[in-house]
Amino acid sequence: MPDRISKDTRLCLSLSGRPSNLGTRFHNFLYAELDLDFVYKAFTTDDLPAAVAGIRALGIRGAGISMPFKEAVIPLVDELEASAAAIDSVNTIVNTPRDGRSHLVAHNTDYLAVAGLLAQRGITPQGTPGTAAVLGSGGMAKACLAALRDAGFADLLVVARTEATGAPLAAQYGARWLPALDGTRPDLLVNATPVGMAGGPAAGDLPVPREAVVAAGAVVEVVAVPEDTPLVRLVRELGTPLVTGTEVAAWQAAEQFALYTGVRPSADQVRRAGEFSRRAV
Amino acid sequence: MPDRISKDTRLCLSLSGRPSNLGTRFHNFLYAELDLDFVYKAFTTDDLPAAVAGIRALGIRGAGISMPFKEAVIPLVDELEASAAAIDSVNTIVNTPRDGRSHLVAHNTDYLAVAGLLAQRGITPQGTPGTAAVLGSGGMAKACLAALRDAGFADLLVVARTEATGAPLAAQYGARWLPALDGTRPDLLVNATPVGMAGGPAAGDLPVPREAVVAAGAVVEVVAVPEDTPLVRLVRELGTPLVTGTEVAAWQAAEQFALYTGVRPSADQVRRAGEFSRRAV
Repeated sequence: MPDRISKDTRLCLSLSGRPSNLGTRFHNFLYAELDLDFVYKAFTTDDLPAAVAGIRALGIRGAGISMPFKEAVIPLVDELEASAAAIDSVNTIVNTPRDGRSHLVAHNTDYLAVAGLLAQRGITPQGTPGTAAVLGSGGMAKACLAALRDAGFADLLVVARTEATGAPLAAQYGARWLPALDGTRPDLLVNATPVGMAGGPAAGDLPVPREAVVAAGAVVEVVAVPEDTPLVRLVRELGTPLVTGTEVAAWQAAEQFALYTGVRPSADQVRRAGEFSRRAV
Repeated sequence: MPDRISKDTRLCLSLSGRPSNLGTRFHNFLYAELDLDFVYKAFTTDDLPAAVAGIRALGIRGAGISMPFKEAVIPLVDELEASAAAIDSVNTIVNTPRDGRSHLVAHNTDYLAVAGLLAQRGITPQGTPGTAAVLGSGGMAKACLAALRDAGFADLLVVARTEATGAPLAAQYGARWLPALDGTRPDLLVNATPVGMAGGPAAGDLPVPREAVVAAGAVVEVVAVPEDTPLVRLVRELGTPLVTGTEVAAWQAAEQFALYTGVRPSADQVRRAGEFSRRAV
């Protein structure tokens, strides 16, 4: 290690309210794997403007932005790239100096990951022409909804118990809001709720009735841990086209990695970095 | 390496106009040697207040401060420890949170190193009762002069060609100023000029006439590269009590390391870290 880090090593960091070890382990694993002169570390802060000023003043290359800073950071950057503008939410800042001064461009790689995976799997408005329903009304629901809209899905539904968050989200993206799916049978189902998440109160549940999953022409799961949520297991049994939460997480992390370093890791490298990052956290 | 860095790893950094690799290699070597969960990296900045604000906001543990920031940083810290106050110059900042907020205390480990080595070698006003002469009028001359004054040396001399810097420095510490040593034969000689420094215009020279070195009861050399300057070689031949520039550099670096980590490396560890840091820079 002491041989690796020099004055020229580039630092990337993350800012979040409660840092986890996932990003630190993911990025440092790939730096070593790809022999890149970078180092990554998670931080928290109680002063976001000063932290961003420090990123500028120290010439830090990149910053992952997590809760609760994803929206608050917007006025502090120089430029919102389309992915961040599409959902008014930032999860990645890249510092690309201009005329020798720091210049911060904000991206949202969750949006990029959902958009990229839909296109890669051929989940298009042509193949799944009916209703596309997004379950949930949080940040990932917004990323999914914007990606669907921008991919041309015309009949969009937001399914969220809480009207105060669900209805405005639906209105913003030209979708309808429903408090529950009930008898509706969407052609594309996107789970952006915590249902199925390990350790959560609904870890063993499906986010919608089994019949709705059976009726769907394609499914996107956003829950990443465990890899095989009850929804993922059922969709695999059915043989329906599927994007898993692990795939979304890996794609967004790879996208972030490529934005920082200019190097796109292979799918196998991303898989191994993901496995490493989840070990001994 | 990827196994070593986690979200809890503490970052120390340095700020200077032109970063070298010495500090980065020195500290990271000792972190590995002592199995401490720290990482160190050199930075430069064109916005010192924002860089210090970033150190606070990110909870960075420590910062080495080099030219041209040693005085400019004073109004940006919360507290000047005695070593920094003695010479109005900071080379080390330690962040010791209070009530959950960053609290920056500034030190000067050059002062601490000179003071510590004088005491360790028994170079006292009792043993060397005559004049103590400091050659030079830069930052290290100031650190040496303050350390001598605080150790009780009463008859102090500043020898510096330039009156504009030499005379005020002498006045500040109750010393006399001389443009050149001429016939004066101080009991203690301190070289804080670049004479003898590798690659400099006077690399092969003594900073004072040979007779003055022969007459001295003790000598402090501040030039650290090479280890055996012409002055050091002559003093060793003579068998006079000596502090070398390499010892000053090692002591100040160890002091800085101990301030950041709370762990004091052994003399052997500091020696090996110093050798490592000078390799492949």
